[in-house]
Amino acid sequence: MERTSVRPLGVAVIGAGYWGPNLVRNFLAFPGADLRWVCDLDLDRAGRVIGRRSTVGTTDSLDEVLQDPEVEAVAVATPVATHAEITLACLDAGRHVLVEKPLALSVAEGEKLVARAAELGLVLMCDHTYCFTPAVRRIRELIRDGTLGDIRYFDSVRINLGVIRDDIDVFWDLAPHDLSILDFILPEGCSPVAVAAQGADPIGAGHPCVGYLTLLLPGGGIAHIHVNWLSPTKTRTTMVGGSRRILVWDDLNPAQRLSLYDSGVELNGRSGDDARRDILVSYRVGDMVAPALVEREALGAVVEEFVSAIDEGRPAVTDGPSGLLILKILEAASRSLTERGAAVPLETVEAAYLAIASTRLRRRGARESS
Amino acid sequence: MERTSVRPLGVAVIGAGYWGPNLVRNFLAFPGADLRWVCDLDLDRAGRVIGRRSTVGTTDSLDEVLQDPEVEAVAVATPVATHAEITLACLDAGRHVLVEKPLALSVAEGEKLVARAAELGLVLMCDHTYCFTPAVRRIRELIRDGTLGDIRYFDSVRINLGVIRDDIDVFWDLAPHDLSILDFILPEGCSPVAVAAQGADPIGAGHPCVGYLTLLLPGGGIAHIHVNWLSPTKTRTTMVGGSRRILVWDDLNPAQRLSLYDSGVELNGRSGDDARRDILVSYRVGDMVAPALVEREALGAVVEEFVSAIDEGRPAVTDGPSGLLILKILEAASRSLTERGAAVPLETVEAAYLAIASTRLRRRGARESS
Amino acid sequence: MERTSVRPLGVAVIGAGYWGPNLVRNFLAFPGADLRWVCDLDLDRAGRVIGRRSTVGTTDSLDEVLQDPEVEAVAVATPVATHAEITLACLDAGRHVLVEKPLALSVAEGEKLVARAAELGLVLMCDHTYCFTPAVRRIRELIRDGTLGDIRYFDSVRINLGVIRDDIDVFWDLAPHDLSILDFILPEGCSPVAVAAQGADPIGAGHPCVGYLTLLLPGGGIAHIHVNWLSPTKTRTTMVGGSRRILVWDDLNPAQRLSLYDSGVELNGRSGDDARRDILVSYRVGDMVAPALVEREALGAVVEEFVSAIDEGRPAVTDGPSGLLILKILEAASRSLTERGAAVPLETVEAAYLAIASTRLRRRGARESS
Amino acid sequence: MERTSVRPLGVAVIGAGYWGPNLVRNFLAFPGADLRWVCDLDLDRAGRVIGRRSTVGTTDSLDEVLQDPEVEAVAVATPVATHAEITLACLDAGRHVLVEKPLALSVAEGEKLVARAAELGLVLMCDHTYCFTPAVRRIRELIRDGTLGDIRYFDSVRINLGVIRDDIDVFWDLAPHDLSILDFILPEGCSPVAVAAQGADPIGAGHPCVGYLTLLLPGGGIAHIHVNWLSPTKTRTTMVGGSRRILVWDDLNPAQRLSLYDSGVELNGRSGDDARRDILVSYRVGDMVAPALVEREALGAVVEEFVSAIDEGRPAVTDGPSGLLILKILEAASRSLTERGAAVPLETVEAAYLAIASTRLRRRGARESS
Repeated sequence: MERTSVRPLGVAVIGAGYWGPNLVRNFLAFPGADLRWVCDLDLDRAGRVIGRRSTVGTTDSLDEVLQDPEVEAVAVATPVATHAEITLACLDAGRHVLVEKPLALSVAEGEKLVARAAELGLVLMCDHTYCFTPAVRRIRELIRDGTLGDIRYFDSVRINLGVIRDDIDVFWDLAPHDLSILDFILPEGCSPVAVAAQGADPIGAGHPCVGYLTLLLPGGGIAHIHVNWLSPTKTRTTMVGGSRRILVWDDLNPAQRLSLYDSGVELNGRSGDDARRDILVSYRVGDMVAPALVEREALGAVVEEFVSAIDEGRPAVTDGPSGLLILKILEAASRSLTERGAAVPLETVEAAYLAIASTRLRRRGARESS
Repeated sequence: MERTSVRPLGVAVIGAGYWGPNLVRNFLAFPGADLRWVCDLDLDRAGRVIGRRSTVGTTDSLDEVLQDPEVEAVAVATPVATHAEITLACLDAGRHVLVEKPLALSVAEGEKLVARAAELGLVLMCDHTYCFTPAVRRIRELIRDGTLGDIRYFDSVRINLGVIRDDIDVFWDLAPHDLSILDFILPEGCSPVAVAAQGADPIGAGHPCVGYLTLLLPGGGIAHIHVNWLSPTKTRTTMVGGSRRILVWDDLNPAQRLSLYDSGVELNGRSGDDARRDILVSYRVGDMVAPALVEREALGAVVEEFVSAIDEGRPAVTDGPSGLLILKILEAASRSLTERGAAVPLETVEAAYLAIASTRLRRRGARESS
Repeated sequence: MERTSVRPLGVAVIGAGYWGPNLVRNFLAFPGADLRWVCDLDLDRAGRVIGRRSTVGTTDSLDEVLQDPEVEAVAVATPVATHAEITLACLDAGRHVLVEKPLALSVAEGEKLVARAAELGLVLMCDHTYCFTPAVRRIRELIRDGTLGDIRYFDSVRINLGVIRDDIDVFWDLAPHDLSILDFILPEGCSPVAVAAQGADPIGAGHPCVGYLTLLLPGGGIAHIHVNWLSPTKTRTTMVGGSRRILVWDDLNPAQRLSLYDSGVELNGRSGDDARRDILVSYRVGDMVAPALVEREALGAVVEEFVSAIDEGRPAVTDGPSGLLILKILEAASRSLTERGAAVPLETVEAAYLAIASTRLRRRGARESS
Repeated sequence: MERTSVRPLGVAVIGAGYWGPNLVRNFLAFPGADLRWVCDLDLDRAGRVIGRRSTVGTTDSLDEVLQDPEVEAVAVATPVATHAEITLACLDAGRHVLVEKPLALSVAEGEKLVARAAELGLVLMCDHTYCFTPAVRRIRELIRDGTLGDIRYFDSVRINLGVIRDDIDVFWDLAPHDLSILDFILPEGCSPVAVAAQGADPIGAGHPCVGYLTLLLPGGGIAHIHVNWLSPTKTRTTMVGGSRRILVWDDLNPAQRLSLYDSGVELNGRSGDDARRDILVSYRVGDMVAPALVEREALGAVVEEFVSAIDEGRPAVTDGPSGLLILKILEAASRSLTERGAAVPLETVEAAYLAIASTRLRRRGARESS
């Protein structure tokens, strides 16, 4: 029996560390959700997150959360190493799950989660928050509607003085942001075909703290990502070079996050076989346009998409397979690191996508007892 | 017989295209030089460069220049493909030479020039202009005096909407700037040990227009250079990460080109073999200092160094071997491109350095008839 | 009888419009406060502010709030025109009050509030939020400890595309920020001695939408404030020029809010009467230092100071008289506008300060029944 | 008899100090001019400006320059106090004159120059360099073609650590730039109607070093100019607020000097007398456009305009009356300073304009012997 859309979705947040409080705040602010539990091994921390005058429950037991029949969906914001186990437990208990990035620590783990969610007809969504920012949504539109033309290059810099993590390296920590954005904005059929990585650990952390990732795109394009925990300055700048226009996204400049350049390069080909050798070039240099964006907290849109996907029985926009794609790229990057940075071919994950896309998910409220 | 230092050095500039006029202006402004000729295949262009009321000679014949016994030194600012031939002709005619970057189109050519200059006791200087900017000089000092500590990473971005060259790719066009800077500032014994490159030609120019160069440094450090002809925005930013301080050089911000961050990262090692796995990190976050720089046009200092080296019978600061090192890196990068970006080992060029450094150059005025 | 410090202070927030939700969030997050009520004429709005799972009460009746004996302090975030009446009602009911800026619509109203609070021994605090930012606190220190030297000029630009208010003009809306900062950082005895204002209403709003305020400081210094509702770009930049150093505060640059310039100007005086006519000037141009700041939400510090002042029976840092000073400057500015911008002398308000400073406030918990 | 346009105009530059060398360089580079003399009381300085291999003459005698019959026009870049005397001498000798800003030290002097030039049919041009920048030319177009709509406000900030001049105060030194720009871009009939000034001399220089100038425009608009010799940072930012669009010009950002905001403010008027009291406001927030500008050195265009005006026997774009207008504003500002900053009415100078505009100037080459 379907639940009416009036009743908000009962949810729980697992993990009250760095990101959990943001999930809590957004679930509390969204009328379509009813936050019932915050779960953390540190009960005090859970308590501080919900504050003094709250009726949200706190617990250090995942079981207690999963025993609450009103909880239909769970958001997992725990350390990466625990993503797979906790997510699997929630899925097995018939709950839809929103997981922080990266989805898991390996492709094998990720595949298990994606398969299990598909099997049970549950929504498995990755919290690829940047895909829900007004800026990235607009970039996707500008590519889809042909404004940029064919994508020639993508260059992203995501650097700052960050916490040196001991569980994952800088690629696994920061690159999922850029990889999820790239996956989200690129048109279908443009998935990277190979990955190369160069990294350094100049401080003796045990794994790369400075990393450069190169993705070869079909048709000669290139995507490059610089991730760095050691930079004293914070940079969040992405260029998307198209055949018609070039876009620069500076996420730290709220007054002008997006700049769209009309200027570009055209090769005036000549007839004859030697056209390439004696090339003539013409430049168009035109106005720059900074499109207006309506600011909105991205995580609010994540929460809304999660609930909507569940309500509508459809995969979320940033579903399990999109998280799995990132794991495949990261694993290939790790392999490239062991091969002096040589590019490693990527199998397409589109087969997995298609399988999922055709899955008919459970409608909300149709959960069986676990 | 030595010439007195009172009499200015007779010089000629070959090539009146993009860079030649800057050489002309700086030689005219420097009291120690006497510009006698501007030579270009296009005589009108040569004439426009010197202007209406000038007594500098113009010619389209290199021979005419070299037949002027008052010309003791030549600056070569012609297309790269002609560097080797023209430079060799000048050296053979007993003239000291200042060459634009890159020194030549191949290591083989470059070696020939370096050897010939050494043999004849002539100054062969590469116009690595950036090494003569107040910013780069200061960076070198900050490394030499230990302010930065051990160099952990170097990251340079040199991108803008540039002229798509048909004679050389974007690596050979733009990376010499960053490679010469890197060579200039790194302490001895820190030369890169391997090079990897990734590039793309998304516009069908026939060679890479977007390039990423990774240099592995001894001791686990990394240097990375992004060069790009297709970016609509201009960026000239270099980070130099040291164990004690991190420096950011933004060459497009004249009010604050250099920023020195006291903040950094320290790993608090623990005893025991598993120190790395369970790592503790402490951050120092301190004030930032932007050192005062006295602005000066770098090319003026290049001209001064060229004349001084000739006067003093010593190799110039950016001598032939430093240009040769760059050719070796560029050739290795080209090889890496054919090997899917795998890192290619670099032989040290220090042997060549030592040979040159011990060469006793001719003192000025000691030229024999050619 | 004194209340133990363990028990948090019962508070209510009046007004759930633009600023109210920020007060609510900060009172909820501060362990020393217990938010009991949110009061707004629009009950739904009050409800949305506290959210679904909250036990904070909502009401549209100020009386209901004041009848709750647990409520010891009230924060007033209502339209400016109602500040005086609501604040007076709260004071009369024996409650400490935190009021948004400006304190009231006139000096007369403000004086009544200050007098009433003093009479009843209650804390009357103005929410001059900027005085509690890490940046302004640091500026104050840098002036107090002599780093800047004597203050020569102050220049503040606070412009953006703002809501055109119909109750107050742009001076009364935006300048209280800068005036409160100026009052907070200037050393004692440096209060402005005269005020001049120029304004324009080029859109027919009925009062100035663009305003320039000049304050003459004792000793020849000058302070200038540009406030503007019509600027498409947002600027929040303040320069504080001292005899020894000059500070630039750019509040929109979180990576470098404060920049301290060592460079300055020295007049090398000559003996004789005509020293001024034939002046010699020497410049010191030195490094720039950007002091590290620990980021903290200012409103959290406001809330903490409010509760601390009540606990300790002392005037708050930004107490009633500091709000009154701003009203005096704003009234003088309004008068200047009617006099073609001629400077209007300011009486000192220090007498009022002294009277208050010596007031012994009621200790917390010592409220009599209202 | 008219001179053919083929033969370049013989010119001399008087003054080889700060600005003179720039004039020399631009006259040498312009094919339509033939620089014959550089005149400076310091002959060595004149010599250094023209350099070693030049046939330009140097002299310390203005008479020698004026005795050269080939010199038809003179550019005056001497200290302000000498502008009037030197310019008058040149005019009296039948030469066209280009004068640095400000035209003279008083309105009386300026009127004499303007009258004398008109009488003799000579071009008297003020070097209002900024009016010849691509940015200001574009701004003028954007106003003329209605893109901006009616001009509501103009706000200019021109501050940096400048040389403290002893001959003129900061208003007379820096404000002529902004006043000439304002005069150049404003449509006819929009000249300021009153001027108010506030200044400070916190370092004891003997005249204001920090200044704020307010100009009241017809129709309720306002223009404001901040000039400052004591700021450690350099700012060159001008906002031009129109009823349809708002333009921001940041002259220190070559990548984006002009930004045109589509966003603005509309008052939705209501019928009835109290429309103003209960105002409703709607905002349009749209895209921003940064128009492409072709970079060109402004002084080159000044030189070209000077020669063209002489060739065509017409007043230059920035002619004597436009320099006179600036003197009138500066004198009114000085008067305002003595009246506590109250606005001083400005007589219109348009009558003077009209008189000049109708003057038929001598055609080039028609000079009588002096």
